[in-house]
Amino acid sequence: MTTSTADGLFAGNRTTLAQYEARHFGWSVSEHVATITLNRPERKNPLTFESYAELRDLFRQLPYATDIKAVVIHGAGENFCSGGDVHEIIGPLIGLAVPELLMFTRMTGDLVKAMRHCPQPVIAAVDGVCAGAGAIIAMASDMRYGTARSKLAFLFTRVGLAGCDMGACSILPRIIGQGRASELLFTGRSASGEEGYAWGFYNRLCEPSELVADATRLAAEIAGGPTFAHGITKKMLHQEWNMGVDEAIESEAQAQAICMATRDFDRAYRAFAAKTRPVFEGD
Amino acid sequence: MTTSTADGLFAGNRTTLAQYEARHFGWSVSEHVATITLNRPERKNPLTFESYAELRDLFRQLPYATDIKAVVIHGAGENFCSGGDVHEIIGPLIGLAVPELLMFTRMTGDLVKAMRHCPQPVIAAVDGVCAGAGAIIAMASDMRYGTARSKLAFLFTRVGLAGCDMGACSILPRIIGQGRASELLFTGRSASGEEGYAWGFYNRLCEPSELVADATRLAAEIAGGPTFAHGITKKMLHQEWNMGVDEAIESEAQAQAICMATRDFDRAYRAFAAKTRPVFEGD
Amino acid sequence: MTTSTADGLFAGNRTTLAQYEARHFGWSVSEHVATITLNRPERKNPLTFESYAELRDLFRQLPYATDIKAVVIHGAGENFCSGGDVHEIIGPLIGLAVPELLMFTRMTGDLVKAMRHCPQPVIAAVDGVCAGAGAIIAMASDMRYGTARSKLAFLFTRVGLAGCDMGACSILPRIIGQGRASELLFTGRSASGEEGYAWGFYNRLCEPSELVADATRLAAEIAGGPTFAHGITKKMLHQEWNMGVDEAIESEAQAQAICMATRDFDRAYRAFAAKTRPVFEGD
Repeated sequence: MTTSTADGLFAGNRTTLAQYEARHFGWSVSEHVATITLNRPERKNPLTFESYAELRDLFRQLPYATDIKAVVIHGAGENFCSGGDVHEIIGPLIGLAVPELLMFTRMTGDLVKAMRHCPQPVIAAVDGVCAGAGAIIAMASDMRYGTARSKLAFLFTRVGLAGCDMGACSILPRIIGQGRASELLFTGRSASGEEGYAWGFYNRLCEPSELVADATRLAAEIAGGPTFAHGITKKMLHQEWNMGVDEAIESEAQAQAICMATRDFDRAYRAFAAKTRPVFEGD
Repeated sequence: MTTSTADGLFAGNRTTLAQYEARHFGWSVSEHVATITLNRPERKNPLTFESYAELRDLFRQLPYATDIKAVVIHGAGENFCSGGDVHEIIGPLIGLAVPELLMFTRMTGDLVKAMRHCPQPVIAAVDGVCAGAGAIIAMASDMRYGTARSKLAFLFTRVGLAGCDMGACSILPRIIGQGRASELLFTGRSASGEEGYAWGFYNRLCEPSELVADATRLAAEIAGGPTFAHGITKKMLHQEWNMGVDEAIESEAQAQAICMATRDFDRAYRAFAAKTRPVFEGD
Repeated sequence: MTTSTADGLFAGNRTTLAQYEARHFGWSVSEHVATITLNRPERKNPLTFESYAELRDLFRQLPYATDIKAVVIHGAGENFCSGGDVHEIIGPLIGLAVPELLMFTRMTGDLVKAMRHCPQPVIAAVDGVCAGAGAIIAMASDMRYGTARSKLAFLFTRVGLAGCDMGACSILPRIIGQGRASELLFTGRSASGEEGYAWGFYNRLCEPSELVADATRLAAEIAGGPTFAHGITKKMLHQEWNMGVDEAIESEAQAQAICMATRDFDRAYRAFAAKTRPVFEGD
C-alpha cells in the first residue's frame, strides 16, 4: 500500500466534530469531551422527530471524529429527558400505516445502535425526569450518574405500547436483572435514584449541583486514557453480548493482541519503568 | 379472506378459562386475573406428576384464553411450594430407564416453557418454603413478591441431582447474577427474603398477611393495562434472550410498530388529549 | 463392549493429582479439596509466563483427576494476586509481533477456558489486592469469598490495554451487571469488598483470618455432595451461556435425566426413606 493510499484511508475515516453546530440540542467540546445538552427545559427536554434524527446522525459520525474521546449527555434544567413529545411525536404517529410506523421505530432504534457502535464511552448524567425514550438513552449509555431525585420510568405501557422499545428488553435486563427489568417494563413505574443505584443502573449518585461536573470528570479521565483501547473495550462488550464463553475468550485474545501492538501499551510500560505517569495518546 | 374465514381464525384461537375446574390445585378468576393456589398445605404444597401435567396443560391454554390477562400463583397455608413430592415423584423415578426419566424432565421443562410462552404476565407470591420445583416456578414467573420469611432453595443437589433443572442454569443467573446463582445451585442453601430482595429475585417484600392481596393488586394493574402490548413485551423478553443487541433493536422496531397500530395506542393518545385516564381494552 | 475395553476407557480418562508437585505455586490436596496458593507474597503474588502455563496445564488435567472434587485458589500473605508481572510479562511483550502477542493472549485465555471446563467448582478466596489477571482468575472462578479489605481492579486500561482480557467483557457483566462492569473495565478503578459483595461478585465477606478456612469449608461441603451432578451443573452453566430459553430447557431435561440415572440419586432417596443423611460418592 502506498503512502498516498494510506492517506486516503485516513482522510476517509477521520473527521472533526469540535465545531459541529447542533440544531436541536446543545453540543460543546472541551478537551476531547463532548457534551450533549437536551435543552427544552420548559418541557423537560422531550425528543422530537428532528432531535432523534440529528442525534442519530451525530452518533453515526462519532466513529470518525478523532477529536472526541468521550461523551456526556444530560438535560437542561433539573430533568434529563421526558421522552418522545406527546404532541410532536405521538400525535402524528396515530393512524399511520405500519410501514410508516416501522420507519419511526427504526429511526429511534438506529439512535441506540449508533450509541452502541461509536467507540467513545457515553456517560449519561441523569437528574429529575428520565422517562420513555429518555430512559432508553440513559440505558443505552455506557455509564450513568444519577441523583437521589432521579425518576427513571420506562413509560411505554402508559401510552398503550410494549416495553420492547429501542432494545429495552435486551439491554435493561443485563444492567439491572431480568426480574427488576420486567417490573419496570410491565408497569411503567418510576424507580427512585436509590433504587437505580442499588440495582446497578446508576454507577454513582451525585449532588444535583455537582452532577454534570462529576460526569464530566469521569469523561475527562476516560478521554485521558488509552482511547483506542477504550473503543475496543466498548466494541467487545457489544460483540460478546450473545457469544459463548469460549468464543468470547478467543475474540478477546485477538482484540487484546491488537491493543498490545499499540503505542499506548509501550508508553505505559516506559512510564512505569521511569516511575512516571503514562501520557496516553490513543494510538 | 372472507369474514367467515376470519371468524374461523378467531374461533380457533380463542377460548375462555374463567370456568375452568382445576383438579390438582385451586383456580379462580376475578376481573381477568387468574389465581392458581397450590393447595396441599399439610405437605407444604408439593407437586405431583398429576399437578405438573395439569399446570403444563393449563399454561398451554393461556395463549388462547382471551378472558385472562394476568396470573397470580401462590401456595395455601404459609408456604409457596416444597417442590416435587419425595414419595409421589422421587420414589417412582428411582430405577427408571433414561428415556423414561427424560419423559419426566421434559414434562417439568414443558411447564416452564408454557409459563414463558403464555402472553399473560405471571406473578409469584412467595411466602415460607419455596424449594426445588417450587423455586423453579417462582423463577419462571415474570415477577415475584416475597416475604421476609420466604425460604428460597434450589434443593436439587440435596437429592443427588444437578442444578440444571427446568432452565435454572439459564434463567436464574439472569435474575440474580451468575455468582449468586452458582452458589444457590451448587449448595442448595436457602436464601432469605432479604437476600432475595437485595438480589432482585423478589420485586418487593410484603407482609405475609398482605402478600396475595399485594400480588393481586399488581396483577390487576397489569390486567387493566394494554394487554396486547404486555404480551408483546413478554414475548420479546423471551425472544431476545440470546440475540445480539443490533438484532434485538430491529426486532423491537418491528414489534413496537405492531403495537403502534393497536387501538390501545390510539386510546392512550385520545385520553391524553382529553386529559382523562385511558381505558385500555387489549386490542 | 468388553470389560477390557471399558477398562481402557476408564484408564484413559482417570488420573490422580493428589501427589502433583507444582513448580510455580503451592498445591495441596486434602479430602478431595485441592488448594492452589499463589505464593510470591513479597510481590503480591504476580503471575509469570511460567505460572500461567502451569495453571493452564493443571486445570486441563482436572477433568480426569477423579480424586479432586473442588478447588480453592488464594494468595499467600494478605493479597490474592497482583496480575501479570510488569517486569516478567509486560516488559517482554513490548515490541513483539502480533502473532506472538496472540500466542500470549491465547495462553491466558486458555487458562480461563480450562477453569470453566473442569468439572470441579472453583472457589476464589480473595483478600487484599486482586488486580489485572488476578481479578480475572477470581472472576473465572465459580464462587468467590472476599474480605472487607479486598481490592478488585481490572487494571488493563492503566497499562494502555482494553478491558477485554481473558473473557472479562463476557463474564463480568453476567456477575455484576453491564453498567458496573463497564465502569470497572473503562476506568480500572478498585472496587471495595463491600461493593463487590453488594454487586454479587463475592458470595460472602469473611474475616481475613478466617477466609481460607471458610472457603475450604464451602469446598469441602461441595466435595461431599453429588460431584458428578456438580460437574453437570457447571457444564450447563457454561453451555447455556448463549442459548435461548427453550433450548436451555431441553438441554437441562437431557442433562438432569442423566443425573437421575446416577447412583447418587438412588442414595439420596434411600437415605431419605431411612431418615438418614445421604453419603454421596460422585457416581
